[in-house]
Amino acid sequence: MNKTRLEAFSDGVLAIIITVMVLEIKIPHGADWAELKPLIPTFLSYLLSFVYIAIYWGNHHHMLHSLKSVSSGIIWANMNLLFWLSLIPFSTGWMGENNFAPNTILVYGVLLLASGVSFVVLQKQIEKHVQDIDALKMAFANMKKKGIISTMVYASAIPFAYVSPIISGILFLAMAIIWLIPDKNIEKALTEKNDEQ
Amino acid sequence: MNKTRLEAFSDGVLAIIITVMVLEIKIPHGADWAELKPLIPTFLSYLLSFVYIAIYWGNHHHMLHSLKSVSSGIIWANMNLLFWLSLIPFSTGWMGENNFAPNTILVYGVLLLASGVSFVVLQKQIEKHVQDIDALKMAFANMKKKGIISTMVYASAIPFAYVSPIISGILFLAMAIIWLIPDKNIEKALTEKNDEQ
Amino acid sequence: MNKTRLEAFSDGVLAIIITVMVLEIKIPHGADWAELKPLIPTFLSYLLSFVYIAIYWGNHHHMLHSLKSVSSGIIWANMNLLFWLSLIPFSTGWMGENNFAPNTILVYGVLLLASGVSFVVLQKQIEKHVQDIDALKMAFANMKKKGIISTMVYASAIPFAYVSPIISGILFLAMAIIWLIPDKNIEKALTEKNDEQ
Amino acid sequence: MNKTRLEAFSDGVLAIIITVMVLEIKIPHGADWAELKPLIPTFLSYLLSFVYIAIYWGNHHHMLHSLKSVSSGIIWANMNLLFWLSLIPFSTGWMGENNFAPNTILVYGVLLLASGVSFVVLQKQIEKHVQDIDALKMAFANMKKKGIISTMVYASAIPFAYVSPIISGILFLAMAIIWLIPDKNIEKALTEKNDEQ
Repeated sequence: MNKTRLEAFSDGVLAIIITVMVLEIKIPHGADWAELKPLIPTFLSYLLSFVYIAIYWGNHHHMLHSLKSVSSGIIWANMNLLFWLSLIPFSTGWMGENNFAPNTILVYGVLLLASGVSFVVLQKQIEKHVQDIDALKMAFANMKKKGIISTMVYASAIPFAYVSPIISGILFLAMAIIWLIPDKNIEKALTEKNDEQ
Repeated sequence: MNKTRLEAFSDGVLAIIITVMVLEIKIPHGADWAELKPLIPTFLSYLLSFVYIAIYWGNHHHMLHSLKSVSSGIIWANMNLLFWLSLIPFSTGWMGENNFAPNTILVYGVLLLASGVSFVVLQKQIEKHVQDIDALKMAFANMKKKGIISTMVYASAIPFAYVSPIISGILFLAMAIIWLIPDKNIEKALTEKNDEQ
Repeated sequence: MNKTRLEAFSDGVLAIIITVMVLEIKIPHGADWAELKPLIPTFLSYLLSFVYIAIYWGNHHHMLHSLKSVSSGIIWANMNLLFWLSLIPFSTGWMGENNFAPNTILVYGVLLLASGVSFVVLQKQIEKHVQDIDALKMAFANMKKKGIISTMVYASAIPFAYVSPIISGILFLAMAIIWLIPDKNIEKALTEKNDEQ
Repeated sequence: MNKTRLEAFSDGVLAIIITVMVLEIKIPHGADWAELKPLIPTFLSYLLSFVYIAIYWGNHHHMLHSLKSVSSGIIWANMNLLFWLSLIPFSTGWMGENNFAPNTILVYGVLLLASGVSFVVLQKQIEKHVQDIDALKMAFANMKKKGIISTMVYASAIPFAYVSPIISGILFLAMAIIWLIPDKNIEKALTEKNDEQ
C-alpha cells in the first residue's frame, strides 16, 4: 500500500482544519474599529491554533517522508490523530468566544495532549513498519525528546488555567515556539538520504 | 485514463466531508460545563460518522490501489458513492440535534445502506474493468463478505430505530468495529503484488 | 510548466464546491417528517448541481489528460471557469430556498451558460497550446458538438423560467443526462494513446 | 525533503480560501431582483479577492516550479504567507458587508501588503536554498520588479481609503491587472529548462 493517498488525505484534512477556523472570526456588521475589538481573543486563538496545525503538518511531513509504504496500523493511527486535530477549530472558537475562560483552556489543553499522544502512537506504528530503521531513528530522536516535553507542558498548563489563564497561554505559546525551531537532526538525516538516492 | 485525479478528487471530497461535520458542533456562548452537555449527542454522532467516513476512505484506498486506469463506469459509480456520502454530514447533524430520534436514525441507516450498495456497484465496475483479476479477487473476497453482512445489519438497524434507538446505535457501532479490524487478505495480496514489482 | 498543480488546484476547488453545497440544506430542529418537507426543493437543486459539477469534473479530467504542460492562457481560462462554477452553490441555494422561482432559474441558467462558454474558451486555449493535435481533435469532436447543443439548451431554458419553471428544470436535467452518456470517442482515443505509451 | 506535499498543502489551503469566500454571499430569502441588490458590494469584493488569490496561486506555482526540494525556512515562509492569505476571506466579507467603508479598505490593504511582503520573504528563502540559481534569477527578475511596485501601490491605496474609497479600489484593481499580464520572462525561462530535460 503506498503512502501518496495517506499524505494527500491528511493534507486535505489539515488544510481544511486550518482554513475553517477563520470562519469562526465572525464578520461584524459595522465598519468602526470598535467592532473589531471583541474579535481580538478569537483572532489570538486562531493565530495560536494556526501555528499548532502548521507544526503538526510539518512534523507529519517529516515523519512520513522516510516511509515508502503504509500499514493498516499507520492508517488508523493517522486517522486517530486527525480526529483529535479536527476538534481544534471547535475548541479554538470556544476559547476565543469566551475570552480564554479557564474551562475553555482546559478543553484546549486536553485536545493538545490527546493530539500529542496520538502523534506518539503514530510514531510507534511507523517504527514498527519501517524498513530503513537507522535513518528514521536519527530523525526521530529530537522529535521524541520534544514530544515528551510537550506532553508534560500541556499537562501542567491545564491546572494553571484555574490559577492564571495567562500562564497557560504562555506555556502553549512557548511550546509552539520550541516546535518551530528547525530540527537540524531531521534535516541532516533526510538530506543525506536524499543525496544517496 | 489514469486514476490519479479520481483518487485526488475523492480524497478531497472525503476530507471535506469528514471536516465539515465538525462545524455542526455549534460553539456555545458561555464557558460553563453545562453549555457542553447539549452537545454530547452531536459529538457522539460526529464520532460515529468520522469512523464511517474513515472506513470508506480506507476501503476506497484499498480498492483503487489495484487499478491502473479507470473507465467511465468507474468514474460514475464513484461519483454516485460520493453523492450518498456527501449527505452524511446533514444526517449526522440531524441525528445529533434531535438526540437520536427514531426518524433521524432511519435516515442515517438509509444513507449507510445507499452508500454500502453504491460501494458494491463501484466494486462491480472495477471488476469489469480490471486487468489483474486474480490479485483483485483475492483482495475483494473479504470485503465482499463484509459488504453483504453490512447491508443486512444496516437494513435491520432501521426498524429497530422505532423499538429502541440504542439497539440501532449499537448495530451501527458494531458494524463500524467489524470494518475496522484490519483485513489480512487484502494486505497480504497487495504486499505480494508490491514485492513482485 | 507542468499540469499537476493545475489539476490538483482544480480538483480541490471542485471538491469544495460539490461538498459545500450540502451545507445549504439546513438541519431542521425537529425530528418529524414534516420538517424535511420544506427541504425537498433544496435537495433537488443540490442533486442537479452535484451532477453538473461532477460532469464538469469528468470533462475537465478528459480535456487536461491529453496535455503535457500548461500555458498562462490555460491557467487563466481555467481560473475563469472555476470562478463561474464557484457561484453555483450560491445559485443552487437561492433556487432551492425559493422553490425554483423564475428569477432564480434565470440566474442558474446564466451561470450554466457562462460556465459552458468558459469551458469552450478553455478548450480553445488548450488547442492553441497542445502538442498532440490529432488525438486531441478526435477526443474533442463530440465534446464540441455537445458544447454547442448545451449552450443553445441553456439559453432557451432561461426564457422558459417565466413560462413554466418545470420546463426549464427538465431542460437542465436533459442536458445533464446527455453529458452523462459516456463519450466513446474520447475513451477510444485515450485508450489507444495509453496503449502506445 | 521533497516539495510535493508543500505544493499539495498550499493548493488545498488556497482552494479552500478561494471557495469559502463565496459562502459570505448570503443567500437571500426572497426571489425578487431587489433581494440581490444589497449583495452587489459583497459580490464585487469576492471578485477582487478571487482574482488576487488566483494570482497568488499562479505566482506560487511559478516560484516553486524551479525548486527540487524544500528547507525549513521555505516551509515556514510559506506558512506565513498562507496565514495572511487565510485572513483575506474575513476582510473581503467585512469590506463587502460595509459597502467598502474606509476602515474595511484599510484592513484589506494591510492584508495585501502583509501578503506581498510575505511573498518576498518566501522568495528570499527560495533563493537561499535553490540549486539552479541562474534560471531562477531570470524567472524572478520581473516578479521582483512587480513585487516592489505592488508594495508601493498597496501602501498608497491605504491612505486614499479616507479620501476616496473608489481610488483605493481602482488601485487594487489596477495592481491585479498588472499581475494578470502573463510574465514572458518566467515562461521563457521555464520552457527552456523543460526543453533541456
